[in-house]
Amino acid sequence: MSLLRGRFGEEVSDLMDRFSSSIQVDLPLAEDDIDGSIAHARMLGKVGILSPEEVLTISDGLNQIREELGSGKFQPASEDEDIHMAVESRLIQLTGDVGKKLHTARSRNDQIATDVRLWLKRKISRLDDALTHLIRVMISRVKSDGQVLLPGYTHLQRGQPIRLGHQLLSHGFSLLRDRARLRDAMTRVDLSPLGACAMAGTPHPIDREMTASELGFSGVMENAMDAVAARDHEQEVVSACAISSIHLSRMAQELVLWSSREFDFVALSFAWTTGSSIMPQKRNPDAAELVRGKSATVCGDLMTLLCLVKGLPLAYNRDLQEDRAPLYHAIETTLQCVEVMAGMWSDLVVKKDRFTKELFGDFSLATEIADHLVLQGVSFRDAHKVVGALVLWCEENQCLLHEVPRDVAAGIHPSLDIDLTPLLDPEASVERRCSKGGTASSEVKRQVELLEEKL
Amino acid sequence: MSLLRGRFGEEVSDLMDRFSSSIQVDLPLAEDDIDGSIAHARMLGKVGILSPEEVLTISDGLNQIREELGSGKFQPASEDEDIHMAVESRLIQLTGDVGKKLHTARSRNDQIATDVRLWLKRKISRLDDALTHLIRVMISRVKSDGQVLLPGYTHLQRGQPIRLGHQLLSHGFSLLRDRARLRDAMTRVDLSPLGACAMAGTPHPIDREMTASELGFSGVMENAMDAVAARDHEQEVVSACAISSIHLSRMAQELVLWSSREFDFVALSFAWTTGSSIMPQKRNPDAAELVRGKSATVCGDLMTLLCLVKGLPLAYNRDLQEDRAPLYHAIETTLQCVEVMAGMWSDLVVKKDRFTKELFGDFSLATEIADHLVLQGVSFRDAHKVVGALVLWCEENQCLLHEVPRDVAAGIHPSLDIDLTPLLDPEASVERRCSKGGTASSEVKRQVELLEEKL
Amino acid sequence: MSLLRGRFGEEVSDLMDRFSSSIQVDLPLAEDDIDGSIAHARMLGKVGILSPEEVLTISDGLNQIREELGSGKFQPASEDEDIHMAVESRLIQLTGDVGKKLHTARSRNDQIATDVRLWLKRKISRLDDALTHLIRVMISRVKSDGQVLLPGYTHLQRGQPIRLGHQLLSHGFSLLRDRARLRDAMTRVDLSPLGACAMAGTPHPIDREMTASELGFSGVMENAMDAVAARDHEQEVVSACAISSIHLSRMAQELVLWSSREFDFVALSFAWTTGSSIMPQKRNPDAAELVRGKSATVCGDLMTLLCLVKGLPLAYNRDLQEDRAPLYHAIETTLQCVEVMAGMWSDLVVKKDRFTKELFGDFSLATEIADHLVLQGVSFRDAHKVVGALVLWCEENQCLLHEVPRDVAAGIHPSLDIDLTPLLDPEASVERRCSKGGTASSEVKRQVELLEEKL
Amino acid sequence: MSLLRGRFGEEVSDLMDRFSSSIQVDLPLAEDDIDGSIAHARMLGKVGILSPEEVLTISDGLNQIREELGSGKFQPASEDEDIHMAVESRLIQLTGDVGKKLHTARSRNDQIATDVRLWLKRKISRLDDALTHLIRVMISRVKSDGQVLLPGYTHLQRGQPIRLGHQLLSHGFSLLRDRARLRDAMTRVDLSPLGACAMAGTPHPIDREMTASELGFSGVMENAMDAVAARDHEQEVVSACAISSIHLSRMAQELVLWSSREFDFVALSFAWTTGSSIMPQKRNPDAAELVRGKSATVCGDLMTLLCLVKGLPLAYNRDLQEDRAPLYHAIETTLQCVEVMAGMWSDLVVKKDRFTKELFGDFSLATEIADHLVLQGVSFRDAHKVVGALVLWCEENQCLLHEVPRDVAAGIHPSLDIDLTPLLDPEASVERRCSKGGTASSEVKRQVELLEEKL
Repeated sequence: MSLLRGRFGEEVSDLMDRFSSSIQVDLPLAEDDIDGSIAHARMLGKVGILSPEEVLTISDGLNQIREELGSGKFQPASEDEDIHMAVESRLIQLTGDVGKKLHTARSRNDQIATDVRLWLKRKISRLDDALTHLIRVMISRVKSDGQVLLPGYTHLQRGQPIRLGHQLLSHGFSLLRDRARLRDAMTRVDLSPLGACAMAGTPHPIDREMTASELGFSGVMENAMDAVAARDHEQEVVSACAISSIHLSRMAQELVLWSSREFDFVALSFAWTTGSSIMPQKRNPDAAELVRGKSATVCGDLMTLLCLVKGLPLAYNRDLQEDRAPLYHAIETTLQCVEVMAGMWSDLVVKKDRFTKELFGDFSLATEIADHLVLQGVSFRDAHKVVGALVLWCEENQCLLHEVPRDVAAGIHPSLDIDLTPLLDPEASVERRCSKGGTASSEVKRQVELLEEKL
Repeated sequence: MSLLRGRFGEEVSDLMDRFSSSIQVDLPLAEDDIDGSIAHARMLGKVGILSPEEVLTISDGLNQIREELGSGKFQPASEDEDIHMAVESRLIQLTGDVGKKLHTARSRNDQIATDVRLWLKRKISRLDDALTHLIRVMISRVKSDGQVLLPGYTHLQRGQPIRLGHQLLSHGFSLLRDRARLRDAMTRVDLSPLGACAMAGTPHPIDREMTASELGFSGVMENAMDAVAARDHEQEVVSACAISSIHLSRMAQELVLWSSREFDFVALSFAWTTGSSIMPQKRNPDAAELVRGKSATVCGDLMTLLCLVKGLPLAYNRDLQEDRAPLYHAIETTLQCVEVMAGMWSDLVVKKDRFTKELFGDFSLATEIADHLVLQGVSFRDAHKVVGALVLWCEENQCLLHEVPRDVAAGIHPSLDIDLTPLLDPEASVERRCSKGGTASSEVKRQVELLEEKL
Repeated sequence: MSLLRGRFGEEVSDLMDRFSSSIQVDLPLAEDDIDGSIAHARMLGKVGILSPEEVLTISDGLNQIREELGSGKFQPASEDEDIHMAVESRLIQLTGDVGKKLHTARSRNDQIATDVRLWLKRKISRLDDALTHLIRVMISRVKSDGQVLLPGYTHLQRGQPIRLGHQLLSHGFSLLRDRARLRDAMTRVDLSPLGACAMAGTPHPIDREMTASELGFSGVMENAMDAVAARDHEQEVVSACAISSIHLSRMAQELVLWSSREFDFVALSFAWTTGSSIMPQKRNPDAAELVRGKSATVCGDLMTLLCLVKGLPLAYNRDLQEDRAPLYHAIETTLQCVEVMAGMWSDLVVKKDRFTKELFGDFSLATEIADHLVLQGVSFRDAHKVVGALVLWCEENQCLLHEVPRDVAAGIHPSLDIDLTPLLDPEASVERRCSKGGTASSEVKRQVELLEEKL
Repeated sequence: MSLLRGRFGEEVSDLMDRFSSSIQVDLPLAEDDIDGSIAHARMLGKVGILSPEEVLTISDGLNQIREELGSGKFQPASEDEDIHMAVESRLIQLTGDVGKKLHTARSRNDQIATDVRLWLKRKISRLDDALTHLIRVMISRVKSDGQVLLPGYTHLQRGQPIRLGHQLLSHGFSLLRDRARLRDAMTRVDLSPLGACAMAGTPHPIDREMTASELGFSGVMENAMDAVAARDHEQEVVSACAISSIHLSRMAQELVLWSSREFDFVALSFAWTTGSSIMPQKRNPDAAELVRGKSATVCGDLMTLLCLVKGLPLAYNRDLQEDRAPLYHAIETTLQCVEVMAGMWSDLVVKKDRFTKELFGDFSLATEIADHLVLQGVSFRDAHKVVGALVLWCEENQCLLHEVPRDVAAGIHPSLDIDLTPLLDPEASVERRCSKGGTASSEVKRQVELLEEKL
């Protein structure tokens, strides 16, 4: 690119241009780059390095470039090394010698670092909103369908009956942590590197607090090397995305399972399913599968960002240019997954009676009998064994728990010489589990209120 | 293991025992498991499920097991499925039927989750201390050697002269963020899952706030499914470790480079180097290399933890047992790396004069001339080109910048018709860079004070 | 460790010992190290560097150490830097000055590289056997249960009826590729680095072909730097393990699904399931879940091995010591997973009639009608739409395909004015799909024969 | 997309379109898709499902679409679900009802699988060529600069003098293994899935061998489920790319080090370096840094591909669509890195005399003295200690080995009562190391011949 390569006589090969150019991957930064440059120019004006007229010329030029980018009139070309040089070149075209003064007291190192942080702030904020929306959707489903009974699974085996609201709230609290992690990351993103220059600061009397404030940062990076060399804030944001996307993959897996013929617990909306090119009857849970699959790509992005920085001495190394693509991809992908999950849960239909009958007398209520025995003074371990014997009898005689004859039960343990039916009603079972965080209606209600409060 | 497999007649194969047992990997949890069980027993006593005598018997039994573990008298065997069952079996041996009551109103799911969080809290706290210590070591080196001049590198090419203190403070601020990340993670670790039971809570009138408080947690997990199914807090802690270990790998890389014959800037202490089995003269920077290499293993641990949970429906799945080994390894490894880095920086000798002479008139001072021209009203881009021409002349004539004849310089640009020498003194150059975050002594001093304050 | 640190006066700290010692992780190499040393000693004898008596003394000493290791009489201590130095120290204790000659014309670099390759060869061979066994188990299940009908799933939705043998053979061919990958990797593992010394070879007149041959290698590494610096063969083996373990995770997922109450297609043997600490009725598919989960750990190992080597200049760097733990773990874990999968499939019971009735008239046979229309000259896309309309009618009228009145069908498309029942019989449908690789019995039989032939 | 969604009344949201469309990422497959469809149509003609005229119409239509894609006249839109449906829709526009017959006896599942394998075959072949070229470049540099002496490094400390050719050949043999791995992977890629249909085969009398042969495959996938569900071949190719790119990162690291002022051993061509936006004197090794950095992105791609498939039951799941982007990226990136590395090594200048003087008498020759002592009958361990004492004397007296007075040397060990100078000449040292694989000229020459032969 001509601005930098003037000194070198040789031609740079096409391959090198394609290999080293970041122009395509940097396009999302164009707006932020222009914002950063305007703030920098205004600061140079304030401290007397640029005249008021020069500041105006540069600002106007940059705003014009912003419009040209929007309208497609100005398109950075692949022979531009990066978006920063492309914008500066265009500025010099537009403003002549004045534009050549813009790069005073800054370097591409701090300029890039600033642009990426501005972009990150915008995106984190959008992801925060999307998570909040998804939590609201989950709360709304708890309110509409939270009473529905289903088996709580462990090991994908039916464990104990629960209310659907209990499971949805589990996701709600998890999503709230996802959001909290992003907010914590934001405190480390929200610092301005502008003015750090190449790594050592500058002899010019710049005012870094002014540019930080104009750009909406809450403070400045205190050390200039750190300002340009650090990438831990990017790793942290992508970690938060990866953790959240893994959580979304669990929610997605549940939708895939529940919309299968075998589970048959929810019907996904057509909007989030697609058909088959060959099997006309199919309604595939594509959106859920993609959420599940895309989580892997965000993990890949994180691995890239960590491996990329490993063993790099300070300060800037060109390797770091490769941070951009995984960073953008991870955040945009997570954002989409959150939005799609909200869409799926907004639109789906819960088949409320799916499990009601099956749960009655089901082995998933066996713990009820154990807990009953404990209340009769039997130790938990012995109670566990007694119920094991009862279940074994059922299996051998191919019946459910409420079908065990009373004398058989009493023969296994004297405390079972009772009518077991009330213990084996799933509604009653669920309501008994009203310990803090339990699945009883009262607890579901309490948790909804708590979650709403925390939003 | 006999406690659970009573109902099943068949023999479980040896392979399955080896494959599924977590007993070896869980040993670090033994202490935490006993603490958790004592708190649980005391709570069961308070709410009337156990009598005061039973609580005492159980507590005494558990404390005896703690001692037996310490002395090696009691060694969990590989036929024990996990540490929790091993401890409970031993308790029943010691206390008979009373011990069988301990597992009332809890499940292994919440028990394990509690143990791991207790272990994490201890380890995060130790890692926090180690990071604090390392930052103090860095500050102390800034105080003793911070004035030393060296080239600031970008692309491993000499960029601009800086003070060593400037570079060390870059690491200092970075380590401070590493610590902050851990503290943020702690807020999500520090919640008690105990009492969540299998996933649905319990009908017993338990007091989860009491056990949380006895165990030193700041609160409880509000949803029982979330309490047993969540692993995001583990992923977050290991992310924080991975990010920090990648940062340490950068510090380690600098030590490897600087202790090479070519850079020759530091002499590592013998304590952190080793010899060669064949080349008797060598003093290899092994500790630094291991810090660099071990960062890769922590990244691998993170990848394991993310990939492990991907696509798992709620609540507990046995896959999750595999979280333990990478979790322990990541934290212990990061802890060791932090300690070793503190040791290396405590003990090394900085070769203070290494770069002093070389920096005088070096091209790494070329920016000084550009900045001088800017002060004369030349635009930065033009100044950049002028200096490029000057450097080219030097290269063609094989001399340094301060050796350029005045008339040659003036011929390149009229504003260079001056004595360039004062511009080309690295000490002066460094002192001029006193913008906020710059490398000047005043800024190094300010940053030290700031960093100490933040500790 | 005293052998190397003699020159250095200072004490090496405990921390450094723990941090840098690889003695625990290297124990599996002890046998290989002794084998390598005996071959080296015999070669030194052949070329005249050692006398026949010296060779005998050293060989006897090494064989004694082998026994001492087996019996536990000799236990390398953590103050030994690594297994190689531990064995050599012990040898010198046993043989005096003669033992001091063993390290002539070799270095730890080539010694370690040799040991790891010997170990790898043994393990690859065992994994190869285990995969062969697993394929045989799958073939055997195809023979016993291959005719069973089940829905073939895509997107976890029922697609088309298939024979179980068809699905098991899919895994069979996949496992065969897993084995082939290992065999390809073996060609790059099976080369002797011994005699490369530190990286530059040696002035001694050694015979590398002799040691290679004695140790059972098929050739030698041709370049001495490459011989000690390369780790690509380790990465390749672990890649092969990761790919295979991901494949096993898919098989495991199917077992988890199929053993759920909802799918209810297989009953796992008690041997590979475990109970619940709280829910006595449960039989959890733990072994399958662990196979699924452990695949993540092998992926983490691979990530470690790649990230570890990234950016390391030649030749040996101490970072590389960290290759051992993930390498062993990946291979041992994959081996166990293969064995466990063979065990699960050997022991499980297929519920042969589970799907028979449900498949009759099921929408998963809709493609049959489309294919029928195509045979009548309707274009596939139109046929696809016609069947879509038919399915829609069924959904609106809540019936299955074979329950559609003939006039309704004819109204949708004239070619449907026939008795649809024969088209909707799953047995017939499956048998029609006799194209190469299809699910018809003839193809299942052909594939079994092919697979057996390839074993 | 209208072809599939006809049955569903509801509108699919924009978000879902963006989320699920693979049209952009699939564009590279367009050519392959058309090739596959033409072969499929010709086969349908041969077996009588299409008439000769229909085959011609479809072939012509597809070839026209190929041209339209080339000229940009036809641009798949984002509302097209994927490239396959876009091409088919366009074909139906062009050919009417005839085009609707094309999808007979195939499914998107086998169609996609075929396209990706065709694409992979082309790319693997190009990467194979690029690796061959790079090896040739390395050989050529060995021939021109192979005799240059430099220190062989371990731990980045100078170990023993070597010839540059020795180090370059180390890379050469490593690159040859990289190529071999790709070729092995090719045997598993080069099998046609076409005709597997959705997963179960087809009742139509297709000829899979014919399409395989027309498309240049060496055989067919033998099982239809395996044909559509397998992704191990993709994982294997990306593994091979990751391993190779990690190797390239090591070569890149050496170029970064060697082109630093401190090592000063090579001068990179301007073509592969760039300047600084602020420091006009800099010539940064950007291409080398990017090769190093991009290796991390290929590792991230691999992690994505493994994590993506983990736990997916057979057969196709929509998650698998996410395989495309990392697959393309990994191969294209590795290809570029290989090409760039070839460019850098073609163009750089080796500073031949850089180390010549420094190596004379350097401690990196200490092993020579040890080997001399061994030849005098001293055991290696004792010789190692003697040299350690000699080096210590040098350090204490700040001199090099050849400057040690003869009486001092003799005092340390009687066998050192000789003129040490001949031992300490690096040329002589290097030539003595003529064991197989050693650094002597004869061995460098032998290895070049061997490597050329293997190409």
